Amino acid sequence: MEKTKVAIVGMGTVGTGVARLLLDYGDRTARHAGRILWLEKVVVRDLSKARDMEIPEGVLTDDIAEVTEHPDIGCVVQVIGGLEPARSIMIRLLESGKDVVTANKALLAEHGPELFDRARQLGRAIAFDAAVAGGIPIVTNISQCLSANGIQSIHGILNGTCNFVISQMDELGTDYQEAVREAQRCGYAEADPTTDVDGSDAAQKLALLSHLAFGARVHWKDIPRKGIELLGPEDLRFARELGYRVKLLAVAQLVQDELELHVGPQLVRSDSPLADVGSAYNAIRVVGDAIGRAWFHGMGAGQMPTASAIVADLIDMVVGRTAITFRTLELWSEQPARVMPRDSGTATGRYYLRFTARDHPGVLAEITGTLGRHGISIASFIQHESEGQLGDNVPLVIMTHESTEGATQRAFNEICEMEMIDGPSVRMRVLD
Amino acid sequence: MEKTKVAIVGMGTVGTGVARLLLDYGDRTARHAGRILWLEKVVVRDLSKARDMEIPEGVLTDDIAEVTEHPDIGCVVQVIGGLEPARSIMIRLLESGKDVVTANKALLAEHGPELFDRARQLGRAIAFDAAVAGGIPIVTNISQCLSANGIQSIHGILNGTCNFVISQMDELGTDYQEAVREAQRCGYAEADPTTDVDGSDAAQKLALLSHLAFGARVHWKDIPRKGIELLGPEDLRFARELGYRVKLLAVAQLVQDELELHVGPQLVRSDSPLADVGSAYNAIRVVGDAIGRAWFHGMGAGQMPTASAIVADLIDMVVGRTAITFRTLELWSEQPARVMPRDSGTATGRYYLRFTARDHPGVLAEITGTLGRHGISIASFIQHESEGQLGDNVPLVIMTHESTEGATQRAFNEICEMEMIDGPSVRMRVLD
Repeated sequence: MEKTKVAIVGMGTVGTGVARLLLDYGDRTARHAGRILWLEKVVVRDLSKARDMEIPEGVLTDDIAEVTEHPDIGCVVQVIGGLEPARSIMIRLLESGKDVVTANKALLAEHGPELFDRARQLGRAIAFDAAVAGGIPIVTNISQCLSANGIQSIHGILNGTCNFVISQMDELGTDYQEAVREAQRCGYAEADPTTDVDGSDAAQKLALLSHLAFGARVHWKDIPRKGIELLGPEDLRFARELGYRVKLLAVAQLVQDELELHVGPQLVRSDSPLADVGSAYNAIRVVGDAIGRAWFHGMGAGQMPTASAIVADLIDMVVGRTAITFRTLELWSEQPARVMPRDSGTATGRYYLRFTARDHPGVLAEITGTLGRHGISIASFIQHESEGQLGDNVPLVIMTHESTEGATQRAFNEICEMEMIDGPSVRMRVLD
Repeated sequence: MEKTKVAIVGMGTVGTGVARLLLDYGDRTARHAGRILWLEKVVVRDLSKARDMEIPEGVLTDDIAEVTEHPDIGCVVQVIGGLEPARSIMIRLLESGKDVVTANKALLAEHGPELFDRARQLGRAIAFDAAVAGGIPIVTNISQCLSANGIQSIHGILNGTCNFVISQMDELGTDYQEAVREAQRCGYAEADPTTDVDGSDAAQKLALLSHLAFGARVHWKDIPRKGIELLGPEDLRFARELGYRVKLLAVAQLVQDELELHVGPQLVRSDSPLADVGSAYNAIRVVGDAIGRAWFHGMGAGQMPTASAIVADLIDMVVGRTAITFRTLELWSEQPARVMPRDSGTATGRYYLRFTARDHPGVLAEITGTLGRHGISIASFIQHESEGQLGDNVPLVIMTHESTEGATQRAFNEICEMEMIDGPSVRMRVLD
């Protein structure tokens, strides 16, 4: 059987998973690729570091030139995180004639235009299904399987850390800080979880998906985003009481030919398939004008799920499917954007508002008066009987009828400024 | 832009949907194919029949030779149902040098070996993502996106008619016959729904998926199957009481290197993503040794979801991706089966048993005694207080601990023969 030589650059958790699939399960990759994927080189920074798996003699090197100058290696899995030296190494690989498979969504979200352009100029390809939603093959599904559809919307649970934290708070009633510590103990959150919990990670993935599905050209930093830091276990209880669950959603949807984009915690109806996505799982709901609603649900991160996506990309690459697909994808090509982002203030929807107010006569009148002045009407209201005394802080929860993002934002800010409002206030959209 | 000429054979519901995507949404197929998919010919049986959509002058014909002898048509969508003349037409198309896209799962389940062999001999390809689970691209996902995985199991809700009928019974409490009539009114069931409700349709799809995912060679008729005809609304109520929902599942799972296959109604835990699959939707849970659990969920039938899958296949075909994939898929090739079917009697699991018994002293002792003699122990038991009199019929529900298919089958049959047992009895596996 023919051998095709491949290489891995970077031997962290994911790189090790890829090596395992290539070395220990070569029969299965051979069956799907019609040839043996031969792991010729693995480039690491530090040769002396202890490894989780044994790499055959002569494969490990700390010199990238052993890959770039190797005449028989055509395809390289690049799994180093961060922006540099990941960017320079990818350019160097492309310039030396290698196709590249990557899982680095931050790199593509930041330098995608440059990297895809360079690949196109050089007649090379970049595959990146592992960069969004880990094991879920959402990139292939959107860019290939759903290609007959005009995509109408994407609603994604794209950050496993947030989903784990919210699930913990929801199921065990723990507070945010404790749930984050548990996520760190379980390996679902970094020591510094900021980019996960503040919505940045989900926004980067959303920028990539919007680009693929809608031909949008949007930088992830321009996507309005909110994190989960202010959520309390009481929000999850109130949501359940109202027939909803809370999820950090990344949303891209066409509204009057413009693309509405945002990331933030939202209320999702309890009977929606997105409501049941638990633990560190990811899920994406795609609405297409031919297929209708479709859901993709699986592990969004982790060593082997991510390696699964990378090796599938690697097989596509070596058999020649990726070259065909890459040619037709409008990955930051010179073609103009097919759709423009919509002014986020004009987005409409229902909202969940929670205020912590002193239990005091007149507080409700002031809040409802403010909402009314901004044209926001109230669909339902929850204030449970206080166990404390008049003057204690009590949570007030309001579900609004349809209103605009701009109006609720302004009304919410005004209410937060009121003297009687104390402690955290939360505002979330409702997915209907 | 380059034009690639294509044809459609058969202009029923699905064919019309395909024509609509090609004629009305050509920009989007062009974007993904990098060329225009030009609908050159549509072959129908009866030219005089009224059509739901206007077909351009000169395209419609009742002569298949206008396609087979057309030098520029390389790829044909064949959407005629049944076995003949569908089989002969497909062979004729392949022999005249055409690649074929089809949604006809009955044809592939029956004549797959012959058709795929013929295509391979002729250097042609057959694409069939629409044949299983309609709009859900499960064929591409299994044969391409999950190719790095050793698939461990597939659990599919593959028949939308059954799922609609069960959902109706579950949500509205209607009985089986009434739910079937409602499915017929809504267009989800045929006038004769037999092959849907008896599990044959799901078994045909399962045979195809097992072949793709496990390299199994099994004829759909050899897959043990049960339908939903004996289900009563009380089963759905009891299932809920026990924390489950009922779904018609098609199951293929590796057990000690053999493949366990069966189709039938099963109890699914209420918090499982499969439990929430409602109405005429389909869903498939795939467990892979790298990806872990993944779920695919969407419309399993219908004009546009099926057309979505067909046109995606058509694009893959004309750009050249299918030719690559088809070459490496072991579609009934001469290679021996990679896995053998497991004796269905040895399958183990927990079981739900419902008997209708006369409310009579000693009935419970006889039933439990019979189960005990077959080595089956009882995990839980439900008998609600009867509103009638001693001697009336009452339902008894038993959940067993783990036992074998063979033993529960034998015990169930014995109990059904008892004089005190009257009316329908139901036996379902439990998905844990």
